[in-house]
Amino acid sequence: MTNKDARTPASTQNPTETSEATGAGKSIGWHKAYVEGSRPDLRVPVRQVHLTNGQSVTLYDTSGPYTDPLVDTDVRRGLAPVRENWIVARGDTEEYVGRPVRPEDDGIKHTSPRGGLRNLDAVFPGRPRLPRRGRAGKAVTQLAYARRGEITPEMEFVAIRENVSPEVVREEIAAGRAVLPANVNHPETEPMIIGKRFLVKVNANIGNSAVTSSIEEEVEKMTWATRWGADTVMDLSTGRNIHTTREWVLRNSPVPIGTVPLYQALEKVDGKAEELTWEIYKDTVIEQAEQGVDYMTVHAGVRLAYVPLTANRKTGIVSRGGSIMAAWCLAHHKESFLYEHFEELCEILAAYDVTYSLGDGLRPGSIADANDEAQFAELRTLGELNRIAKRHDVQTMIEGPGHVPMHKIKENIDLQQEICEEAPFYTLGPLTTDVAPAYDHITSGIGAAMIAWWGTAMLCYVTPKEHLGLPNRDDVKTGVITYKIAAHAADLAKGHPGAQEWDDALSDARFEFRWEDQFNLALDPDTAREFHDETLPAEPAKTAHFCSMCGPKFCSMKISQDIRREHGGSRTEIEEGMAQKSREFAEAGNRVYLPIAD
Amino acid sequence: MTNKDARTPASTQNPTETSEATGAGKSIGWHKAYVEGSRPDLRVPVRQVHLTNGQSVTLYDTSGPYTDPLVDTDVRRGLAPVRENWIVARGDTEEYVGRPVRPEDDGIKHTSPRGGLRNLDAVFPGRPRLPRRGRAGKAVTQLAYARRGEITPEMEFVAIRENVSPEVVREEIAAGRAVLPANVNHPETEPMIIGKRFLVKVNANIGNSAVTSSIEEEVEKMTWATRWGADTVMDLSTGRNIHTTREWVLRNSPVPIGTVPLYQALEKVDGKAEELTWEIYKDTVIEQAEQGVDYMTVHAGVRLAYVPLTANRKTGIVSRGGSIMAAWCLAHHKESFLYEHFEELCEILAAYDVTYSLGDGLRPGSIADANDEAQFAELRTLGELNRIAKRHDVQTMIEGPGHVPMHKIKENIDLQQEICEEAPFYTLGPLTTDVAPAYDHITSGIGAAMIAWWGTAMLCYVTPKEHLGLPNRDDVKTGVITYKIAAHAADLAKGHPGAQEWDDALSDARFEFRWEDQFNLALDPDTAREFHDETLPAEPAKTAHFCSMCGPKFCSMKISQDIRREHGGSRTEIEEGMAQKSREFAEAGNRVYLPIAD
Repeated sequence: MTNKDARTPASTQNPTETSEATGAGKSIGWHKAYVEGSRPDLRVPVRQVHLTNGQSVTLYDTSGPYTDPLVDTDVRRGLAPVRENWIVARGDTEEYVGRPVRPEDDGIKHTSPRGGLRNLDAVFPGRPRLPRRGRAGKAVTQLAYARRGEITPEMEFVAIRENVSPEVVREEIAAGRAVLPANVNHPETEPMIIGKRFLVKVNANIGNSAVTSSIEEEVEKMTWATRWGADTVMDLSTGRNIHTTREWVLRNSPVPIGTVPLYQALEKVDGKAEELTWEIYKDTVIEQAEQGVDYMTVHAGVRLAYVPLTANRKTGIVSRGGSIMAAWCLAHHKESFLYEHFEELCEILAAYDVTYSLGDGLRPGSIADANDEAQFAELRTLGELNRIAKRHDVQTMIEGPGHVPMHKIKENIDLQQEICEEAPFYTLGPLTTDVAPAYDHITSGIGAAMIAWWGTAMLCYVTPKEHLGLPNRDDVKTGVITYKIAAHAADLAKGHPGAQEWDDALSDARFEFRWEDQFNLALDPDTAREFHDETLPAEPAKTAHFCSMCGPKFCSMKISQDIRREHGGSRTEIEEGMAQKSREFAEAGNRVYLPIAD
Repeated sequence: MTNKDARTPASTQNPTETSEATGAGKSIGWHKAYVEGSRPDLRVPVRQVHLTNGQSVTLYDTSGPYTDPLVDTDVRRGLAPVRENWIVARGDTEEYVGRPVRPEDDGIKHTSPRGGLRNLDAVFPGRPRLPRRGRAGKAVTQLAYARRGEITPEMEFVAIRENVSPEVVREEIAAGRAVLPANVNHPETEPMIIGKRFLVKVNANIGNSAVTSSIEEEVEKMTWATRWGADTVMDLSTGRNIHTTREWVLRNSPVPIGTVPLYQALEKVDGKAEELTWEIYKDTVIEQAEQGVDYMTVHAGVRLAYVPLTANRKTGIVSRGGSIMAAWCLAHHKESFLYEHFEELCEILAAYDVTYSLGDGLRPGSIADANDEAQFAELRTLGELNRIAKRHDVQTMIEGPGHVPMHKIKENIDLQQEICEEAPFYTLGPLTTDVAPAYDHITSGIGAAMIAWWGTAMLCYVTPKEHLGLPNRDDVKTGVITYKIAAHAADLAKGHPGAQEWDDALSDARFEFRWEDQFNLALDPDTAREFHDETLPAEPAKTAHFCSMCGPKFCSMKISQDIRREHGGSRTEIEEGMAQKSREFAEAGNRVYLPIAD
C-alpha cells in the first residue's frame, strides 16, 4: 500500500491532502487524506503516513471525520450525511412519518412521571429528520442492486478502499459472499464491505448495561473504537436510555452500527422473556431500522427442538439472545417466534437495507462444549434462513463461536461456508482456552487470527474484561488493537494484495533505524513511542543506530547493514568480493563492524 | 488434573500438604503442595487450588520454594541443592579446582583498579563450592543414562510432573525427542522436560544490557517470571557484572538457566567480533558450565557460505549471535570457529550435562524474509550438528524463528522435525505480522500457539517491549502469561492428557457463579479479581448469580441453570417433560426464568 506501488487504486491515485492546515497532523507523521472516486462527493478517507525518507504509505482509515482537522465535528449536530445524495438520487426510497418514540423505548415505565410520546427530533435535536424506507415494490438493498448489475456509489467507495475493481465488489455482494451494511437511515456511514475476498474486518462492542454507564460514554467509546480501527460497532445497550443512546451513536458514527433488537424488546417486557411477542419484537426492529441500524443480530436459529441438546453441556447456553429465545420456547412450548415469522422479518429489513447477522444463540461457552450437536444443529438452520433472506434480497452474514480449541476451529469455518453458501462468517474469537480470564483478548485473538486466515470475514473483538466486567476506554483500545493484529495477520496469510507492503514499510524503517517512521507506521504509535522513551528517553535516541535491546556497542541490524554496505548490495557481489574485502578490513583495523565507540 | 481424576499420577497420589501453617496460602484459595516419588528426597511441587465446592485442582508449578511459606528463602544463601544427592550418588562426577574467575569475566578491563583474580566464593559468598564435572570416560548426561536404560531421579521427577510413566520420559530422552536440561553444577533445579510428547514449555529472557539494569533486578525478574509460569529462564546479560549476575541467578533459580556464551565472549574482546577466537569462546563456555548453566545457545550453523544468502533480505541478520558470527566469518574469510570446533565443544558440554540449544542465527527478522534460503540452509546444518551432538551424548534442542506469517509456520516445524530427527524445537514466537510494535507479545503469541500445536516443544516468550526497549517487571509478567496461554492452548489442541481438566474446572466455576474459584483457577488470579472489582466491587458480588456484563435482571448462564434444574438433568427428561413443565410454569407466573427481582 505504499504510494510507489502501481497495482492498486489507492496508490495510483494521489490522495488529496486536506491542506497545509494539517500541519499538526504532519508533525506527528501522518494526516488524513482522501482518494476521490468518479464523482466529487465520493471521497474515500485514508491515513497517509509520511516517512522521513520522503516516501509515504497509505493505510485504510476507519476513524471518520474526527481525525480531519478541517472538519468541525460536533456530537450534538452529528456527522454530515455523506451518503444522502446517493440514496435520494436512486429515487427508490421515500420519507414517511415514522413510528412515534415511546417512553418504554428508553426503558421508562408507562407510569413514570417522565412518560409521554417523544419524537426523533426530541431525541436528537441536532438534525431533524424523517425516517426513510423503500417505496412499495422497490428492492433497495445493495444485494438487489448488485444482482441487477448496478454498481452503486457505495460499491465504488469500498472498491477504492479495498484496492479492487468495483466489479469485484458487485460480484461478491450479488453472490451473497459479501455484505455492505448501509441502512438508508444511516447516511453518515462511510461504506465498508465484509466478505472473505476483502480485508478482514473487526467489530467492537459498546453499550451500557443495567448496572452502569451513560450516553456520553457510549458515543465516546464508539469514536474511540473507530479511532483505533474498528470497522463496525455493535451497540449492545440493555439499560435505560437505550433508544436515545443508539440515536446519538448513529448520528455520530462513520461506521455501520449493529444491534441485537431482542435486548431492547426484553427491556420493554420488563425482562420477562416469556412475555415477549412477535409484535413487540417487530415494533422494536422497525424502531431501530428507522433510526438507522445497519445490521441486526437475529437469533432465529434457536429452535424449540434444539434446546434439549444443550442439557448435558458444561456451560449450557451462554448467548444472551440464545437463552432468551430458549426460555421463551420452553415457557410456551412453542417454536421460536423469530423462526416462524422470519419471512415477514425479511420484508421489514429489506425496506431499509438492514443486514442480517444471524446469531449463534447456541454457541459453545467453554472448550468442553465446542462443535457439539446443539451448535451445528443451529448452524444448519442458519443455512436455511440464509437462503430465505437472500430470496428477499436481504444481505446476510452468519455469526460464529465462541470457545473452540485450536484443532476444532477449521471445522467451524468449513461447515459454515458449506452450509451457508459462503455467506460472510462473523465470529467472536474464538477463545482457544478457558483458563485465562483477564486475558481473553489474547486467548481469543489466537483463534480469531486462525479462523480469519481460513475465511472468516469479520471478527467480533473481545476485551480483557470479557467474563469479568464492562470494558473501559483502555479495554476497548486493547481489544481493537488485538483484533486488528489478528485481522492483519490473516490478511497476510491469505495473501491479500498489498497487505504485506505495510509490514515491509515498517521493517524497512526498523532496519534503517528510522525510529519515528516505525512509530508512525505502528498500529498504535503512541504506545510504541512511549515504550521506546521508557528506556531511552533522549531525543537523539530517535535517530540513533542502535536501541536499548543490545545497546550502542553491538547491534545486529547495524552489522547487517555494514556487511551489506561494505560487500555490495547483491549476493554475487558479496561472494566475489568476500576474500578481497576481508583483507581490506584487516588493514582498516576491522572496526567497520563496530563503528560506534564505547 | 483434578484430584478426582484417576488416570494420572499427580492425581492418584495425594499431594502432601506443606502443613496447616500454610493458612495464608489457603485464604487466597491455593497453596503449595508436593507429590512424593519413590524416595523421600524426591518431592514434586504442585499448586493445589481449593474450590469452594470442596474439590481441589492440582496444577503444574514452576515457582520454586519461594511460594512455600515453610521454606525460608534468602537470595544471599541461594536455594537448597535438591539434586545434589542424586548427582553425587551416581558416582560418575568429581569436584575439581575450577577455572579462576577473572575481572574480564565481569566486563572489567585488565587495567581497571578493581582488577585481580576472584574465586567463586567471592562471587557468591553464600554457598562456597567447587565445580563438578564427569570423571574421565564417564558419560554423565541424562541422554547417556536414558540410552543405557537407566531411569534417573530427574526422570522420575518429570514423569510425576507430566503425569506420564517414567519409562515414557526415558524413551523420549533416549530417542533425542526430548531434553532434560540439568547441569551437574546447578543442583538447585527442579527437573523439567522439553519435548513434543510433554506439556509445552515457556522460556522467559532476562538480562541486563550495556545500557541499563542491575544484578538485583535480574534475580528478581527470574523469580518473578517463574512465579507466573516460566519453565526456563535465559540470562542474556551483555553489560557489566555478567559473571556475578549469572552466579546469583543460578544459585537462586529453581528452573534451568540458559545463556548465549557468545555474548560474554564478545564482551571479553571489547565488542570486536573479529577478535573472537575459539580459545576465548571455549574458556567462556567452561566458565559458564562450571557455574551451572543448563543449556547454551550456540550459533554454529551460521557458516561462511550462508552469509551472502542474507544480502537481499529486507532485514538482514537480526540474531545478535548470528550477526557476530557472520561478522567474524567475513572479517577472516574463514569458516565459523564454532562449526569447525563443534566436536570439541560437544566434549565440554557432555562433561557437565549442558544441553545444546542450536541457535538460528539466520532466522528471519521480518515477514518478508520468512522461510528463505538463508534460514533453511542453516537449518540443514543444524540437523547435521544435532547428529554429531547425539553421538557425543549431548542433549540437543533446535531454535526456530522469528517473524513468519501464519501460512508459512507449519513448514518450519515440519522441516525442522524431519531434518533434526524430531529433536525438540524451541521457537521465538513466531511473530505473525510486523505492524504492531508494543504488542509483539500478541503478534507472536498467535504464531506461538499454532507452532506449538504442530509440535514445537518450548516457546521463547516475547514481551510488549520487543523491538522497543528492555522489559520491566510488568512486561515480564505479560510476556509469560501470554505465552502460558499459547502453550496451554496448544496442549489442548494436541489433546494432552489432563490438559482440558483445568479449563473444565474453570468453566464449571463460571457456570455455577463460583467467582472466587474462577479467580483462583485463573492463570492470573490477581488481575481477574481486580477487573471484576472495578465494575462490581462489593463483596456480595463475589457470590452473586450474575455479573456486570448483563446485570442482575438477565443472565444467560442463570437461565441455562434454571432450564436445567426445572427440566431435569438429562436430555431425555427434558424432551419428555417439556410440555408438562410448560404448563406448570405458566401457572407459576413464568417467573422461574428470571427469579431475581429488579
